Amino acid sequence: MGDNNKQDIFTPYLYIFLYQLPMEQQIPDRIRIKDIAIMAGVSVGTVDRVLHNRPGVSLASAEKVRKILKEMNYQPNMYASALASNKKYHFVCLLPKHNEGEYWSDVEAGALQCMNEMHDFHITLSMVYYDQYDIDSFVKSIKLVMDKEPDGVILSPVEEDNTKKLTDMLQEKEIPYVFIDSNIDNLEPIAFFGQNSSRSGALAAKMLLMIEPGIKEVVIFRQIYIGRIGTNQQNNRELGFEEYMRKNHPDCELSTIDLAMNNKEHDMEVMRKYFERHENVTIGLTFNSKAYLISEYLQELDKNDFRLIGYDLLEQNVEFLKNGNNIQFLIAQQPHQQGYRAVTSLCDHLIFHKEVEQINYMPIDLLCAENIDYYTSLNK
Amino acid sequence: MGDNNKQDIFTPYLYIFLYQLPMEQQIPDRIRIKDIAIMAGVSVGTVDRVLHNRPGVSLASAEKVRKILKEMNYQPNMYASALASNKKYHFVCLLPKHNEGEYWSDVEAGALQCMNEMHDFHITLSMVYYDQYDIDSFVKSIKLVMDKEPDGVILSPVEEDNTKKLTDMLQEKEIPYVFIDSNIDNLEPIAFFGQNSSRSGALAAKMLLMIEPGIKEVVIFRQIYIGRIGTNQQNNRELGFEEYMRKNHPDCELSTIDLAMNNKEHDMEVMRKYFERHENVTIGLTFNSKAYLISEYLQELDKNDFRLIGYDLLEQNVEFLKNGNNIQFLIAQQPHQQGYRAVTSLCDHLIFHKEVEQINYMPIDLLCAENIDYYTSLNK
Repeated sequence: MGDNNKQDIFTPYLYIFLYQLPMEQQIPDRIRIKDIAIMAGVSVGTVDRVLHNRPGVSLASAEKVRKILKEMNYQPNMYASALASNKKYHFVCLLPKHNEGEYWSDVEAGALQCMNEMHDFHITLSMVYYDQYDIDSFVKSIKLVMDKEPDGVILSPVEEDNTKKLTDMLQEKEIPYVFIDSNIDNLEPIAFFGQNSSRSGALAAKMLLMIEPGIKEVVIFRQIYIGRIGTNQQNNRELGFEEYMRKNHPDCELSTIDLAMNNKEHDMEVMRKYFERHENVTIGLTFNSKAYLISEYLQELDKNDFRLIGYDLLEQNVEFLKNGNNIQFLIAQQPHQQGYRAVTSLCDHLIFHKEVEQINYMPIDLLCAENIDYYTSLNK
Repeated sequence: MGDNNKQDIFTPYLYIFLYQLPMEQQIPDRIRIKDIAIMAGVSVGTVDRVLHNRPGVSLASAEKVRKILKEMNYQPNMYASALASNKKYHFVCLLPKHNEGEYWSDVEAGALQCMNEMHDFHITLSMVYYDQYDIDSFVKSIKLVMDKEPDGVILSPVEEDNTKKLTDMLQEKEIPYVFIDSNIDNLEPIAFFGQNSSRSGALAAKMLLMIEPGIKEVVIFRQIYIGRIGTNQQNNRELGFEEYMRKNHPDCELSTIDLAMNNKEHDMEVMRKYFERHENVTIGLTFNSKAYLISEYLQELDKNDFRLIGYDLLEQNVEFLKNGNNIQFLIAQQPHQQGYRAVTSLCDHLIFHKEVEQINYMPIDLLCAENIDYYTSLNK
């Protein structure tokens, strides 16, 4: 391979925009680093030193070069620089334990896809799992994460105190970390990717009131584990829902059903008892990802006309939505993108030295039978 | 730079997945080309020749190597190979002429962003515009496109006969082309990116029936130019809407208002006349991107309670949606992504030699005041 090629790989470029006739627009032409040097009245070596923050440049020259780089909207050839580096990066992703097809497998698949696409940049990724219903399990996982000596960590946080045990250690070692799903501002992740839960609950309320404007009573199917609501997300969506209802339709009665969602006998008993006392309730919501399970329960109770709003595009949820089995709307939050962009943000921070946006709310996507077919293809 | 670095840049890698304890999963470790050679029982040079389709390998060895590459789910280091090449690519993007902030500026911005991100691969992009209401203008633009001797072309097609004049020339020169917005199957683009218009019209109908289940009459605001509906998309959405209404709510009367949308005096006159005869109509749709303009007309007629469903997230549409000015729902189709992915598909085809999916329906996104804030940030 000749020198010519090497130059094309390792020389940073910049763009200028040349405007021509209104009917045609020429965008953009490349200009070499030597053009910057000419404009700044310095040598090519000086520009190169400024670009790579190397010493040996006078303050005045450095300032001149930086000013011109800025004016020209300069973009370094980041990929080539990173490819030329031999540095290896190991990321650890700490998520709730899950089965294939459950919500978290999409997050994981997104993280893996990004790692896969970035494999030219020497990135590897380890998964560590904790049991989200067992705090000890999260605390134990901290050691597993630290033992891997990661260069960056992605995690779905639990409550603040225990999450802090991990982030304190990471901060001490100056290891950057990213939160997905729910955020804890105080703990200062370099980035957060997740839904604004309260607005998402408000959207569920709006759709409910569109389905049945004069609604008198609605039921919320909760997933409860040892007396507490399963996740931060589920809880915050419910609060957002209640607030919207109080404001826009205060006379509607809200009742709740506490389900285990892993114990059918128990759940069916609870459902039966509820509907004995509330036989006129024909519409409900669930703020977790198990709408399909509630639909199965409802069908055993011969409640085929009961209408349900749920969350997340698990395969079974989508199937029930398409077939019109109870589920009218699903609200989605692009878990695959959350995983993907979490890895991207670590790469941008560590490898490409790009600025990373700290708070990244995901879209609140609204799916029904009419648009579900065209949703998944793009987002996977 | 030492040989060591070169090897890291130009040697293809592959992945293997090592599964460990259930609590931890190691994904993936890199294995060098020499591991493939060992597994196939051939030399490293032989593997390299097979990877780059170079001669000098026996059929039997080539087959053995290919079998192992396939088993190992081999991924070539495409970026490094492409970076090492000196080939330059010039793409031309042929779109309807538009003002800043109109629908097409998002498509253009997406195409430019992708070109920008791929600038390490020597890509440039020229814009050529035609007047979508003047067929002569499209025909004239054909010469402008061909004069640029493009390596690939992106275009938003007009009707089949005139579009074919361009695609025939491109086919003759074996220049690949991509359609955006609407598709003409017969003309065999390497890829199409756009919405399924008829399903999108059905979604509009569904939302209409949710807003007003007992609706008796609805009006469609059309953008008409010299007697014909402005675009393929607008027309096909309307057909999808009508079909859904016929099937689900056949007694609803459909009326239409033909507007120029660039002649306020004319349009207001038409609106006034319509509402003199149809004073009970309080809900309507428009299948083009000018919902904000119709809302402005409606407000001049003191019809602040008139409800409107529209398309596309133009700045003014979004503002009206947020403020509750007539617009209840907007249906969007990710124009930025259409432009972005059109450029990606040309790169994949020409530079990375990846297979390109031919039909790519974009999501049919449903936006209202409750979820609009979180939509735009991700999709730009």
